[in-house]
Amino acid sequence: MTISDKPVFFAMPGNDEFAALLAGRLGAEIGEMDIRRFPDGETYLRIRSDVEGRLTVVVSTLVQPDEKLAPLYFLGKSLKSLGAAHVCLAAPYLAYMRQDKAFRPGEAVTSEYFAGLICSFADSIATVDTHLHRRESLSEIYSIPNLNAAAAGEISEWVRNNVRDPVIVGPDSESEQWVSEVAQMAGAPFVVLEKTRRGDRDVSVSPIELDGPHRDRTPVLVDDIISTARTMIETVHRLRELDIAAPVCIGVHAIFAGDAYDELMGAGAARVVTCNTIPHPTNGIDVSGLFVDFITGHI
Amino acid sequence: MTISDKPVFFAMPGNDEFAALLAGRLGAEIGEMDIRRFPDGETYLRIRSDVEGRLTVVVSTLVQPDEKLAPLYFLGKSLKSLGAAHVCLAAPYLAYMRQDKAFRPGEAVTSEYFAGLICSFADSIATVDTHLHRRESLSEIYSIPNLNAAAAGEISEWVRNNVRDPVIVGPDSESEQWVSEVAQMAGAPFVVLEKTRRGDRDVSVSPIELDGPHRDRTPVLVDDIISTARTMIETVHRLRELDIAAPVCIGVHAIFAGDAYDELMGAGAARVVTCNTIPHPTNGIDVSGLFVDFITGHI
Repeated sequence: MTISDKPVFFAMPGNDEFAALLAGRLGAEIGEMDIRRFPDGETYLRIRSDVEGRLTVVVSTLVQPDEKLAPLYFLGKSLKSLGAAHVCLAAPYLAYMRQDKAFRPGEAVTSEYFAGLICSFADSIATVDTHLHRRESLSEIYSIPNLNAAAAGEISEWVRNNVRDPVIVGPDSESEQWVSEVAQMAGAPFVVLEKTRRGDRDVSVSPIELDGPHRDRTPVLVDDIISTARTMIETVHRLRELDIAAPVCIGVHAIFAGDAYDELMGAGAARVVTCNTIPHPTNGIDVSGLFVDFITGHI
Repeated sequence: MTISDKPVFFAMPGNDEFAALLAGRLGAEIGEMDIRRFPDGETYLRIRSDVEGRLTVVVSTLVQPDEKLAPLYFLGKSLKSLGAAHVCLAAPYLAYMRQDKAFRPGEAVTSEYFAGLICSFADSIATVDTHLHRRESLSEIYSIPNLNAAAAGEISEWVRNNVRDPVIVGPDSESEQWVSEVAQMAGAPFVVLEKTRRGDRDVSVSPIELDGPHRDRTPVLVDDIISTARTMIETVHRLRELDIAAPVCIGVHAIFAGDAYDELMGAGAARVVTCNTIPHPTNGIDVSGLFVDFITGHI
C-alpha cells in the first residue's frame, strides 16, 4: 500500500496530550473533528480534515472502556467510510485483556469480543505493556498487525535519573521477568514479592526482606497496572515498618480506581510516578516514542 | 427453525420490570445471569441459564446508549456462542435514529453504524414508536426482522379512562398523523401546533387557539419523545396563559434530560404520564403487550 502525505491524528476526548507528543515526533498533522453528546446521550461526530488515501491514527486510551467504545467505533467507521487508507488505533492502555477464556461455564469471553469489535474498524493497533495473562503475544487476540511496546526502558531511564541507589521491588512472581529487566537497565538490584489475591480489593504480600546490602537503598516499587492499588498500598505499609527510605512507586498504567491514589500516598509513598498511557497528575514518564517506528512502518 | 421450550429472557440492568411484564404475558422464563463492573470499568458477564437451542429475548432499553452498548454486545455474543437458536433484542426505546445520513460532509452516519453493531449479534429487534425521520420503515436501517410497534392504542385507552373531555394537542406537523390516530381512538378532537427548533434546548411553538368548542376540554399534549422537554414546556406555558384546564402531558419515551421533568411540572402540567419504554416515575402506560405477537412469531 502506498499512502500519500503525512499521517493525520485524531485524539479522542482526553487524549490530546499524548496525540500531540506522538504527532510531534512524527511531524504529523492533528486532524480536526467535532465530537459532542446530545442531551439523550447519543454521540455526534464530524470529521473535518481530509483523510482520503491517508494513514490515520486514532489516539484513545481505553481505561473505563465501555463508555468509550461507541464513539471510538463511530470514528473508526467514519474514517474508513471517508476513504482513509489505514486506521491505526494507538491505545496506550488497552482494556479487556483479563477474560480471554470462560473460566466458568457461561462466562462472556470479553477479550475476544472486544478485540473483534476493534478489528472491525482498525487496521492496526499499538499499545504499551498490556498484560497478556495466559497468552504469548497480542496476535493471539488481535488479528490485525499490532505492537505491545515495553515501557521498561523508559522506566529504568527515569529511575537512573531520579533515584539514587535504588532497589527495584516487584509485586509478584508473574512480574519477575519484567522487573528484572527494569532493574538490569537501571543498573540496580531487585527483589520480587509473593502476592495472594482474595478479591478485587483484598490482597496480601509476603514479608519483605530488604536487609544486608539493600538496607541503604531506596525501594522502587514497579507494577504494570495500578488499579485499586491494593498490592502497592500493602507493600508500602510493609516497607514503612522497616527502618529504610520511603519507597518510590512507579506504575505503567495509572487507573487509580476510586481513592486509590490518595490511599497510596497516605500509606507513606515518597513519590508516585506513572507513564502517560492514562492521563493522571502522576504522569512523569513519556512513552509516546515507543509508537514511532510502528506507525512509520505503515507509511 | 424449530425452537424448543419457552423463550428465556435476559434483562439488562434497569430492565427487570419490563422483562417481567413481557415474560409474564408469554409464560416465559427469566434467565439468570451475573453482570458486574470491575474497578477499572470493564464488564464481567456470566450467563447461568441454559440457552442452547432456545429462543432468547434480551430486554434493554437504549436511552443513554453509549454506556449500554459494550455489555449488551457481550451478552448478545455470549448467547450466540452458547448456542441460542435466536436472539431477539427487545429495546422498548431505540437510539441512534437521528443521524441516518451525513447532512454535512464528514458526519458519522451513526444510525447505520449502530444498527450494524446490533445486527452483528441480534437476529431480530422489537421497539416502540421509534422516530423514523426520513425513512419509511425500520427495515431501511435494520437488516434483521423488526417490529416498530405503535403505542397509540395504549395511549388512547389511557386517555379514555383517565381524562374527561380531552382535546389532543400535537407538538408539530410531523406528529400530525400519529396524533390524529390517538385522538380518533380516544374519541377526541385534536389540534396540531407549529414548532420552530433553533437548537437542542431552544424551541418555540406557534400561538395556540383552543377557543370555540374546545374551550371546556382538558388539553392532552402527546409527543413520542420527551428529552429536554423544551417543546412540551413551551406549550404548557402557552396553554397556561389561556383560561382553560391545566394540561395533561403524555410521552411515549421518558428520557427527561437533566431537570426536564421538574421544569415540565413547574410550567404547570396537571400530570405527566409516559409509557414504560424507559423506566421513570411517570410510567403509567404499559406497552409490553405490543411485543407479544412478534416474539411468539419466532417460536
